[in-house]
Amino acid sequence: MVTLSEVARRARVTAATVSNVLRNREKVRPETAERVLKAIAELGYRPNLNARALAQGRSSTLALMLSNIANPFYPEFVVAAERAARQAGYFLMVCNTDDDAQIGRAYLNQIAGTLVDGVLVMNTDTAMNELCIAAMRSAPILLAMWEHPEKPPALPCVAVDFAQAGALAAQHLLGLGHRNIGMLIGDGCGGLQDARSNGFRTALAAGGVVRATVEMVVRDSIDSGYEACMTLMATHPGLTAIFATNDLLAIGAIQALVGMGHAVPGDVSVIGITDIALAHQVRPALTTVAIQTEASAALSIRSLIRLIDEPLQGPSMVIAPAPALIMRDSTGPRRKRNARAAKAGA
Amino acid sequence: MVTLSEVARRARVTAATVSNVLRNREKVRPETAERVLKAIAELGYRPNLNARALAQGRSSTLALMLSNIANPFYPEFVVAAERAARQAGYFLMVCNTDDDAQIGRAYLNQIAGTLVDGVLVMNTDTAMNELCIAAMRSAPILLAMWEHPEKPPALPCVAVDFAQAGALAAQHLLGLGHRNIGMLIGDGCGGLQDARSNGFRTALAAGGVVRATVEMVVRDSIDSGYEACMTLMATHPGLTAIFATNDLLAIGAIQALVGMGHAVPGDVSVIGITDIALAHQVRPALTTVAIQTEASAALSIRSLIRLIDEPLQGPSMVIAPAPALIMRDSTGPRRKRNARAAKAGA
Repeated sequence: MVTLSEVARRARVTAATVSNVLRNREKVRPETAERVLKAIAELGYRPNLNARALAQGRSSTLALMLSNIANPFYPEFVVAAERAARQAGYFLMVCNTDDDAQIGRAYLNQIAGTLVDGVLVMNTDTAMNELCIAAMRSAPILLAMWEHPEKPPALPCVAVDFAQAGALAAQHLLGLGHRNIGMLIGDGCGGLQDARSNGFRTALAAGGVVRATVEMVVRDSIDSGYEACMTLMATHPGLTAIFATNDLLAIGAIQALVGMGHAVPGDVSVIGITDIALAHQVRPALTTVAIQTEASAALSIRSLIRLIDEPLQGPSMVIAPAPALIMRDSTGPRRKRNARAAKAGA
Repeated sequence: MVTLSEVARRARVTAATVSNVLRNREKVRPETAERVLKAIAELGYRPNLNARALAQGRSSTLALMLSNIANPFYPEFVVAAERAARQAGYFLMVCNTDDDAQIGRAYLNQIAGTLVDGVLVMNTDTAMNELCIAAMRSAPILLAMWEHPEKPPALPCVAVDFAQAGALAAQHLLGLGHRNIGMLIGDGCGGLQDARSNGFRTALAAGGVVRATVEMVVRDSIDSGYEACMTLMATHPGLTAIFATNDLLAIGAIQALVGMGHAVPGDVSVIGITDIALAHQVRPALTTVAIQTEASAALSIRSLIRLIDEPLQGPSMVIAPAPALIMRDSTGPRRKRNARAAKAGA
């Protein structure tokens, strides 16, 4: 059997470099990586990613259970989680529950403890007590993207401070002079995005604005954001800014505004939360509060593995890196003429 | 142990309805579904989706191996495939190879034949001979979204007539009077999209246009489509239409055109291929050739299961439903003034 050292010798690199090429290609210069890959192909080397698993009697596989892979946030989380898992020597399998608690339950029964070593659960509708039972009976479960750090759940989790994300959005709009603000609150995978809207409301009040002019709860999608924004502007033409608890809603809102002939941000500013790839790809590019998806996914995988390795010392709640405002082209200062219109419309 | 019949009795429905609620909720009226779910919760019923697997000594799990879950086409395929698998009593696990043949190989070694009953492989860079070896050694493998129906691969597949998709795009643009056409050819997951571009070229020639004015091969993403379209219009200002072999490129192209002050489709028409959800969500909504993702995913799952059940009688190549033109707002008749500019620019 060809060994890693033989590959290294043939490619004239160290064994560590071969390992880097196999696990984390970014670190290695492209010419070097190419030489290593050529040596691997010529020698017919097969990396034994399962060595650790075999030695420890483990399958070396993790599962990520999520509710709706069609929401673009999840694939981005999957990519980052898969890379982090691979770097730690684990495979990652993704189970899409299709927004259905029943399916989530069936997946847990099928996979936890038999096919995989641990499960990352993200925003599924499966009830907490069922997750706890599955975790006790079989493999460790860690909740990713927990939205309420002030209320630790009954299972270990990686929490994101979504209230802070909402607050950053509010402070940004207040700083630009906006007082007449519409709010679109997403209700999707993982339920109502209330941590975000509460954080937004609190920061608004702290800034001297008693409340948003209008609030709407809508399903978390571009189409719903589009429809909701049409309604918002028809009923409240004086709005100078829209805050959406999710980028999808914000992107839909921008398209509705442009379609109605409003300039963004000239007439109306729009801000979201998440920073999905689409946020920088739409025009105008979306100002949003980034929740650090990649870092949060990697942290979730590492925390789950720690939980597997040391079940008694596992983390109870780990806080993900803080959200950060990403200023792009969809927000700007409130215009005077809109200020007048706002009064008329309010 | 609580049985399905007891749930049915308590919810005052037939056992078939309970089964429908568990497997395919769309078929059941919401009030009925709610009653059934209430009965399930009250009785503590746990559907034994593994019964069939246990009886047959099977894990009842399929894997879908794909190259890049961050490309929005794949999540849409996953959702449809997962539903089709579930309806047939199988779980579906997704493995993202992150565009890396090495990882695809490792997944195949890890999962085929041990964790799953069959593998659907879609556009990964894993070499055909390696797939064949994995299929012989362990679980059946079926290739989904095979782009060349004229060249059946060495493994069973579900093929999509992408050349026909390209031809439909060409015929649509020709019918609108366009003669000065730029082409963006995607090179992404699964390699160069040459079946599509060849089909486009052939139909163009059949319509009396010798060739596209300009062709560019670019990586398959919105960002690349944006950049490429900037270059295309700078070097060939007379173009009146752009054909992209993929919706992502087409969406990027529209944004570049709008950013440069060109009206779409007033000045330049844009057409793509695939019909991802984003195609109807952008403004102007994208005219595209739909490749029937949902039907193709379901057909792939059904074909894989047939291959598992009857390995000797399995399908060699199944052709997916034909592509179809979806006319939206990004294409329109060539304008006279563009015709003149085209001559000047060509």
